[in-house]
Amino acid sequence: MSGFEPIRYHHGEVALTGRLIRPAGPPRAGIVIYPTIINGSARIEQAARDLAASGYLAFIADFYGEIPADFDAARPLADAARADTGYFRQRLRAALDALRGLPEMQGLPMAAIGYCMGGAAVLELARDGADLAAVVSFHGLLDTDRPAPPGVIAARILVCHGDADPLAPRENVLAFWKEMDAAGATWHFHSYSGVKHNFTDPASDLRGSDMFGYNASADRQSWAAMQSLFDEVFAAG
Amino acid sequence: MSGFEPIRYHHGEVALTGRLIRPAGPPRAGIVIYPTIINGSARIEQAARDLAASGYLAFIADFYGEIPADFDAARPLADAARADTGYFRQRLRAALDALRGLPEMQGLPMAAIGYCMGGAAVLELARDGADLAAVVSFHGLLDTDRPAPPGVIAARILVCHGDADPLAPRENVLAFWKEMDAAGATWHFHSYSGVKHNFTDPASDLRGSDMFGYNASADRQSWAAMQSLFDEVFAAG
Repeated sequence: MSGFEPIRYHHGEVALTGRLIRPAGPPRAGIVIYPTIINGSARIEQAARDLAASGYLAFIADFYGEIPADFDAARPLADAARADTGYFRQRLRAALDALRGLPEMQGLPMAAIGYCMGGAAVLELARDGADLAAVVSFHGLLDTDRPAPPGVIAARILVCHGDADPLAPRENVLAFWKEMDAAGATWHFHSYSGVKHNFTDPASDLRGSDMFGYNASADRQSWAAMQSLFDEVFAAG
Repeated sequence: MSGFEPIRYHHGEVALTGRLIRPAGPPRAGIVIYPTIINGSARIEQAARDLAASGYLAFIADFYGEIPADFDAARPLADAARADTGYFRQRLRAALDALRGLPEMQGLPMAAIGYCMGGAAVLELARDGADLAAVVSFHGLLDTDRPAPPGVIAARILVCHGDADPLAPRENVLAFWKEMDAAGATWHFHSYSGVKHNFTDPASDLRGSDMFGYNASADRQSWAAMQSLFDEVFAAG
């Protein structure tokens, strides 16, 4: 497994920098990781390292072209990136294209995973018909202002969801299922009782908010579910 | 791994025969498997063999004391066994006691899994406060006439559910979540889009009913989820 290598890419005029980490052997596939609103964290780097250790080329996408100092600084950057869903999808696709363009990716399948805002991001990519074997959302937001039209979604969808996440209450879950069914998507939805937003990150417990909370079991089981789905879709690919 | 050994046990006057299969090495835990309404099938035996291959003592429970010739013959037997939920729970507990009573089970933790009627069965055991590390329901019915009182459920709960299962529609899913939350249970609920009843069994496709259908991905992913939950609860046990 390599260390992180910066990979420059662009969305229009916006300069972005992804971070690539390689497995020890030949990669099984390429995985783009979309971070939370803060645009990177120790937890996201851990996910990338774990994917590389499992044989994947892992690429951490860059939402903004900068690392905000804190959540207050991140919010306006996120608002700008997401102001228009079509624009946001282009920003996200720029990361897919950056990974896809690497020589070592030629002929390899791809998937995308994401956390919180990154979870919403991978669902937007699926809705946009991105050529991905699978997308996996961890505590991602589920709603959109551009529901997927029928027949567009190509990616298998796995949503790993905290049932006590106030950012995605049960009515959003039901609306998401309806949207995905209308689109003809193939989705697996995992709901974890009493589990809050950002359940994958031990740092959640330091946020001082009742909305956030680390849950070791949900973290472990959601990661295992992702691995098992990847084993399935990349074996067939 | 051994072959199947018949284990006689009783529920009151009813003579029952479980089937035990042993792992090659020392068992990690004991798992009781509750079959579908037909009280045993090639698929259930496969589940037991797979559990034994994974290091578990696996015990196929007997619902009736007989193997019905077909589904028509099974229905009155199931109606009799389930006529009263308290009586049904005793029938189910007799299998737990039979496995628990084996000398090789001493000091080992236990879990229970079940399919269709057997899925409903393991949820009834959880509601009854059975001393199990976990229960896993595969396409089980979710409703009950004896909801769990607060604080009684000891087992971790994993439900692997086909979202297109007409025997457990979405209103039952929501009612189940509410019941489990009121009981203070820890549950993970996995819902698979477009997946029908009895999705684990290739023979489902021979049933000639639109309610039933094998789904290889749901079968694979639900089994992996069960294994991953067992890895967690038995590592801690």
